[in-house]
Amino acid sequence: MPVTPNHLASRRQFVRQASLTAAVAAMAGPAAALPLAAASATTKDETQRKLGFAIVGLGKFATQQMMPAFKDCKHAKITALVSGSPDKAKQLAAEYGVDPKSVYSYDNFDSIKDNPAVDVVYIVLPPSLHMEYTVRAAKAGKHVLSEKPMATSVADCQKMIDACNKAGKKLMVAYRAQFEPFNLDAIARIKKGELGKLRQITADHGRIVKPTEEKAEAWRVVKKTAGGGSLMDIGIYSLNAARYLTGEEPVEVTAQEYTDKSDPRFKEVEDVIHFTLRFPSGVLASCTSAYSIQEVKRYRVFGDKAYLDLDPATDYYKHNMTIGTKEGEMKASLKEGNQFAAELDHMAECVLENKTPKTPGEEGLKDVRIIMAIYEAARTGKKVKV
Amino acid sequence: MPVTPNHLASRRQFVRQASLTAAVAAMAGPAAALPLAAASATTKDETQRKLGFAIVGLGKFATQQMMPAFKDCKHAKITALVSGSPDKAKQLAAEYGVDPKSVYSYDNFDSIKDNPAVDVVYIVLPPSLHMEYTVRAAKAGKHVLSEKPMATSVADCQKMIDACNKAGKKLMVAYRAQFEPFNLDAIARIKKGELGKLRQITADHGRIVKPTEEKAEAWRVVKKTAGGGSLMDIGIYSLNAARYLTGEEPVEVTAQEYTDKSDPRFKEVEDVIHFTLRFPSGVLASCTSAYSIQEVKRYRVFGDKAYLDLDPATDYYKHNMTIGTKEGEMKASLKEGNQFAAELDHMAECVLENKTPKTPGEEGLKDVRIIMAIYEAARTGKKVKV
Repeated sequence: MPVTPNHLASRRQFVRQASLTAAVAAMAGPAAALPLAAASATTKDETQRKLGFAIVGLGKFATQQMMPAFKDCKHAKITALVSGSPDKAKQLAAEYGVDPKSVYSYDNFDSIKDNPAVDVVYIVLPPSLHMEYTVRAAKAGKHVLSEKPMATSVADCQKMIDACNKAGKKLMVAYRAQFEPFNLDAIARIKKGELGKLRQITADHGRIVKPTEEKAEAWRVVKKTAGGGSLMDIGIYSLNAARYLTGEEPVEVTAQEYTDKSDPRFKEVEDVIHFTLRFPSGVLASCTSAYSIQEVKRYRVFGDKAYLDLDPATDYYKHNMTIGTKEGEMKASLKEGNQFAAELDHMAECVLENKTPKTPGEEGLKDVRIIMAIYEAARTGKKVKV
Repeated sequence: MPVTPNHLASRRQFVRQASLTAAVAAMAGPAAALPLAAASATTKDETQRKLGFAIVGLGKFATQQMMPAFKDCKHAKITALVSGSPDKAKQLAAEYGVDPKSVYSYDNFDSIKDNPAVDVVYIVLPPSLHMEYTVRAAKAGKHVLSEKPMATSVADCQKMIDACNKAGKKLMVAYRAQFEPFNLDAIARIKKGELGKLRQITADHGRIVKPTEEKAEAWRVVKKTAGGGSLMDIGIYSLNAARYLTGEEPVEVTAQEYTDKSDPRFKEVEDVIHFTLRFPSGVLASCTSAYSIQEVKRYRVFGDKAYLDLDPATDYYKHNMTIGTKEGEMKASLKEGNQFAAELDHMAECVLENKTPKTPGEEGLKDVRIIMAIYEAARTGKKVKV
């Protein structure tokens, strides 16, 4: 069911190339911005053409964070919705100008293959479903953006990678923090050597998971659906940050877990889990994750010259960076940006320019593999090699 | 060599009792302050009588922090100095009004037994010397206040306890943070249940140890003198805080260490060491300690209702407390106090009232025992039972 007209590929390609070059040039600074002139020959209407995204799963995060972000996207727009709630989907379709014919249920999802308005399938379902919908999307000839954690097992991650490779489609994992300006600035400062030689990182992520009675949150505390507890859902931010901040892969991990099994929320999944990662350079990262504490989303990176504190570090907005040196602490002034839009645009750009995403399936698999090592370390009380 | 007149014991005892009762009553609040009237019969001069302290070791911490604090003490005064530097000792004696005859070298230290002006020997020497000087002080019939870490081995800690017990003298370890108002307030808030049920603690202590060329710092990086590296010296604040904040003793520990052995400072002792303590209630405390990073002295205690952040937590002054609840963060307003004077007065009070110190030898031994378990966990990669 084709619902929007297809564009001439050659023309489209030219426009894309020009506008993307301009966008990349703008990021690189004034000196590199000259190619902008090349884009001026195209009309405003043409430069506004965008790739079509199907949103699979219309939960709180999708509807309150991701879908509103599309308005700030240069290369991405919502062209389809997939939901088990027809009424909700219908209402959102009207709100976002999505053709009612491009609203799918989980049953007829596979027919999305016949919808040329959909280039990318964005999976915002509970983790246990990521593999199935990635495989189905790839079979339907669509590129895939999957929420994190990528899947509930390393094997499922691999199946997702294989399916997209086989279909010749892009696969990206939605690590929004890797598109967030404060985090990117932190990485840049570390790379520039502003902190000196890195010594240690601390990273803490916590939130209160509501009682299981609240249906919308229920999947988080079901092992089969979530794959695990706080570590899978939010501790992964501590883990992923330790990796992108060091630019290294951990080699060893120790861990301890504390879960009150008498709490109805934690019959199946872990609550508090603390883990320490060792990186090849020697840097240690001590990370915490909990499902029963007031919200915390912070990290501090300690070099031998200075430290960089981001608190909150991985929130949606309102990030706060402090640099500590021997002269004392100072706040870094940096403009907030829409990490969701940047993430969606990056996915679109990778499709348009046939590039490997910054956070491909392999990135998601690495985290899931380390998460499994953390669980093993917590279970055995022994240091586990990754 | 008696240098100050001895007081009539019975009279002295009465004055002490009265003034201490008043002090304790004042701390307990207005309703308990009635016994103050009993003290009003004594003269101002008599209530100002203080116990005499001998300062053993006139390094930076002793001369810049502890000695100036005596001016704020109600029950403690400096009456003797022990040093290997006669000129420095002479100058300080003049500055603090100490009788020149009460200045000792390490060689003639034992003759302090004949000096009735000295009630308490305060040992501010490198850790490896704490045992020797405690034993000598106890044999000289003096009470002992020892800096932390108590000693460089569990066996030495036990010898110190035994020596003081045998001599019928008090032994206290100088855990200043346990006398610091913000830390005491944190403990009180936790006990009152302000944070709800405790879930986890993070505690970080770090500083830059200067190159070994700087003589005053040299002992810190010599294994035999310091007993270990950052953990013995500053990581112990993370450890001790985790214990006094939970009010529990840890049962298990995991740890990892990172030390660049090519750094001349770290040929003998560890630099970065991260450890996670498990307490019987299940609470996990993730602690870090480092000798090569910009100063950090902070902890955060997470309950299921709120968190309490102290940053800095264990500085000399300028503590900063934040309470985080679902309503957001708020700063706690609390008056700074002189933790050093409070610590010294407590030692004096324990002698005067024949009470066991709040931080007795047994407290110091517990930390040293856990430190040894942390080292073992780091070495073996296995969880170690404490």
